[in-house]
Amino acid sequence: MAEQDPQGRAAMRPLLTDLYHFTMALGYWRAGRAHDPAEFELFFRRCPFGGAFTLAAGLRECVCFLRAFHLCDADVQFLASALPSDTDPAFFEHLRALDCSGVTVPLLQVSGPLLVVQLLETPLLCLVSYASLIATNAARLRLIAGPEKRLLEMGLRRAQGPDGGLTASTYSYLGGFDASSNVLAGQLRGVPVAGTLAHSFVTSFSGTEVPPDPMLAPAVGPGPRVNLVACVEVWLKRVCAHLGLAVQDPHPGERAAFVAYALAFPRAFQGLLDSYSVRRSGLPNFLAVALALGELGYQAVGVRLDSGDLLQQAQELRRLFRTTAAQFQVPWLESVPIAVSNNIDEEELARLAQEGSEVNVIGIGTSVVTCPLQPSLGCVYKLVSVGGKPRMKLTEDPEKQTLPGSKAAFRLLGPDGSLLLDVLQLAEELPPQAGQELRVWPRGAQEPCTVRPARVEPLLRLWFQQGQLCEPLPSLAESRAFAQLSLSRLSPAHRRPEQPALYQVALSEKLQALVHRLSAGTSL
Amino acid sequence: MAEQDPQGRAAMRPLLTDLYHFTMALGYWRAGRAHDPAEFELFFRRCPFGGAFTLAAGLRECVCFLRAFHLCDADVQFLASALPSDTDPAFFEHLRALDCSGVTVPLLQVSGPLLVVQLLETPLLCLVSYASLIATNAARLRLIAGPEKRLLEMGLRRAQGPDGGLTASTYSYLGGFDASSNVLAGQLRGVPVAGTLAHSFVTSFSGTEVPPDPMLAPAVGPGPRVNLVACVEVWLKRVCAHLGLAVQDPHPGERAAFVAYALAFPRAFQGLLDSYSVRRSGLPNFLAVALALGELGYQAVGVRLDSGDLLQQAQELRRLFRTTAAQFQVPWLESVPIAVSNNIDEEELARLAQEGSEVNVIGIGTSVVTCPLQPSLGCVYKLVSVGGKPRMKLTEDPEKQTLPGSKAAFRLLGPDGSLLLDVLQLAEELPPQAGQELRVWPRGAQEPCTVRPARVEPLLRLWFQQGQLCEPLPSLAESRAFAQLSLSRLSPAHRRPEQPALYQVALSEKLQALVHRLSAGTSL
Repeated sequence: MAEQDPQGRAAMRPLLTDLYHFTMALGYWRAGRAHDPAEFELFFRRCPFGGAFTLAAGLRECVCFLRAFHLCDADVQFLASALPSDTDPAFFEHLRALDCSGVTVPLLQVSGPLLVVQLLETPLLCLVSYASLIATNAARLRLIAGPEKRLLEMGLRRAQGPDGGLTASTYSYLGGFDASSNVLAGQLRGVPVAGTLAHSFVTSFSGTEVPPDPMLAPAVGPGPRVNLVACVEVWLKRVCAHLGLAVQDPHPGERAAFVAYALAFPRAFQGLLDSYSVRRSGLPNFLAVALALGELGYQAVGVRLDSGDLLQQAQELRRLFRTTAAQFQVPWLESVPIAVSNNIDEEELARLAQEGSEVNVIGIGTSVVTCPLQPSLGCVYKLVSVGGKPRMKLTEDPEKQTLPGSKAAFRLLGPDGSLLLDVLQLAEELPPQAGQELRVWPRGAQEPCTVRPARVEPLLRLWFQQGQLCEPLPSLAESRAFAQLSLSRLSPAHRRPEQPALYQVALSEKLQALVHRLSAGTSL
Repeated sequence: MAEQDPQGRAAMRPLLTDLYHFTMALGYWRAGRAHDPAEFELFFRRCPFGGAFTLAAGLRECVCFLRAFHLCDADVQFLASALPSDTDPAFFEHLRALDCSGVTVPLLQVSGPLLVVQLLETPLLCLVSYASLIATNAARLRLIAGPEKRLLEMGLRRAQGPDGGLTASTYSYLGGFDASSNVLAGQLRGVPVAGTLAHSFVTSFSGTEVPPDPMLAPAVGPGPRVNLVACVEVWLKRVCAHLGLAVQDPHPGERAAFVAYALAFPRAFQGLLDSYSVRRSGLPNFLAVALALGELGYQAVGVRLDSGDLLQQAQELRRLFRTTAAQFQVPWLESVPIAVSNNIDEEELARLAQEGSEVNVIGIGTSVVTCPLQPSLGCVYKLVSVGGKPRMKLTEDPEKQTLPGSKAAFRLLGPDGSLLLDVLQLAEELPPQAGQELRVWPRGAQEPCTVRPARVEPLLRLWFQQGQLCEPLPSLAESRAFAQLSLSRLSPAHRRPEQPALYQVALSEKLQALVHRLSAGTSL
């Protein structure tokens, strides 16, 4: 499906920012420094969830925001009401004329006039932070589930409002999920959508309802239409006999609901089995409807369980599908996909994905959307240079210090394509050369080390300059493929969700020396 | 400030829902049941964060959504692409004509045609769940902080995208915060906004900058303009002498930044003290600028700390403010508000709010917005009646059972206005009468109990009927006042954040009997 987001995001406006960016803007302006060239970096200090990798996401939203950045009259009027009443009107004229045509963004370096790039802090953090967090969370869940299981994101109702849900659906797909329940994510972002029926559909039927048209034509060919209701009742008897149940055990309302759903979706019939009793009601009703449909040439697409011990029930269901398939000689029934949901977290997912599990489809809501292991990535946006001079935050809290100066970043690879480490260096330095030995300072180490990369890849790409995109944005599907490729290149030790080996980032000797000099406080 | 949200919420559209609502819609429609009268209830099973109360929030967004509910051509076309290709075109005509004119909503009961009220499930959950969660979280933080501390929400950058941030700012204000950093929440929702400066503003100055106009007029009266830069340098010497520092200890860039900010905001000067060293740089620079401003009749509005031991530093700052105020005979300096921020959670907040703390203003971001103790409320939306008949989900998992039938809810109060318990009963029952004894079944109890309320308050209000609001929505400020009033009526045992007494909810005898009858499985 195509991607489109014609309306953009109403909430994503220049005023969706912290007030102090505008008070600082007035401060810069009053100090005659609005146009000072400045550079900020957007980064995070630690990978989330105790893992060793993060998928950086949100580029599309950042670029859309930068292109559209403009304060309308109502925005400026509101700011005038929030700032001191004697503020120089010329400041508001300055705001009215602002745009991002002077801003350059190789993700996630942002350079341009000081006043504007300062204003961009919170919106860019807001757009990158959660997108990256949930993409990373989804990637972890995909790694735990393995490549075969079908993963569905269904957490819209657990998100922080509409846009949180839209972001969650988009970026959990990017991180490795197969589809989302969120229809708007399908319409606006091209995410594949999926869904069938809820318990309320099942419990809304009592069994006394009469379908206006119970007749169903065969899947292919010109055969006569068949009364599905009657056909299901015939099959119910056979199924109950096979399962050792009384024919009145299965709930008639549940069966009526299944028949109603099958009449609407004969080619995509799924049974939700646990509105009453799975074994005594959901299963026989499903089998009766699926076998009646089968007579007409339709194959049911699956069952879903939403409570209880999901793994154990799936094993039991598969066993009964096999015996029933053999009993009635309908081989396709053996492999009907079993879908499960119900507060599945990483631990339960690992259980459901274990060797021999008969679960095929896993729906995850809360655990993917709210990222309960760590609900925020903790991205920051820090000034690294102004007026061409490097800047560094020299707080007493070493954790909050920043790396100064305009930088470049490279990924160094070994001869077998394995990742050795990433190097940060000053923008003016020559890039590392393949085959040449390099001395770098791993972060946190007291000594430098040497490394000889077989290949060197630049990590920063220039996306936005002079108010324009520099190259077309990748589609969501392309970004998804790129993310999966990147993850596949990580070594298993870095990729594993628990206690991974830390991926090394190192500074060039020049950058290390600059940090050292500025930390000594002599040259600011 | 006025509330206005002219654009509404672009993302809050009918397709922002799970696909299975539309597949079920086709199922209902095909079964001739689209217009069956039905009722759903939106509720949660447990109060969040281990507490005993929840602020239910999100009414405004729900009502706005219901009023605007309509599928446009593009929406219907998208659904046609997501549903089977042989779906009867008349179904799409049905969707095109849908609106909520048949829907009635006393929060949070939703009754109307089955097909429509089913479609509303996910959007209403999405709008109520996070709004209620964060309002409740904010209320807990307010209870911990006590009434005197000024609480600022500043978590926009940690939210789930733009709308998550807007919802967080709006409902943390409703829950008891005083203001937000989020400018858009001020513009669209009338939330008071606050903010001054970040570290990047401070570190962007090296001290060599020359302000284009260093002259400042006195706060009142016609006196001559004064060179603030020069005046600050004079004060710096005095301050350093008083504090026992060398005059070159305080960072000149930090001082230049403070001067620049003071020139832009002479009536609202705040110092951010920890870009370098609080004691040796931030404090003396702040005092020099504040005292220079003081000479011109301006009083600084505060200082902010964003790292280290916030409580201990606040105590030390207050002590030094007092000695400095005495030394230079500027009494207002004693009580300059001290603001703190930096990953403040419930535990740290309790520490900052303890008896004798000198902290006045507390900024909270991640902990209020992401609700890390419980990142989702777990609201559900369950069918309770269809075609006038009660419905109940009778799963094998007792936790997931629902209470059947269309209901009314009442709060029973004692003679002193204390809350006794809430009663759920069938809609057709007479309301409980003040002064009359009532037999009810507390949830989870094996035996009924009797209660004699001195007063009875109905809990459900009719907000939406026949496509229209039934009464004007309260303003955000009114809702905030109502929430605070409601919390004040809870007993301290129910209100306390840790290990509170559980607030009792009971069923009427008739409702209890209905549950019992339907659980026995005899009458569905």
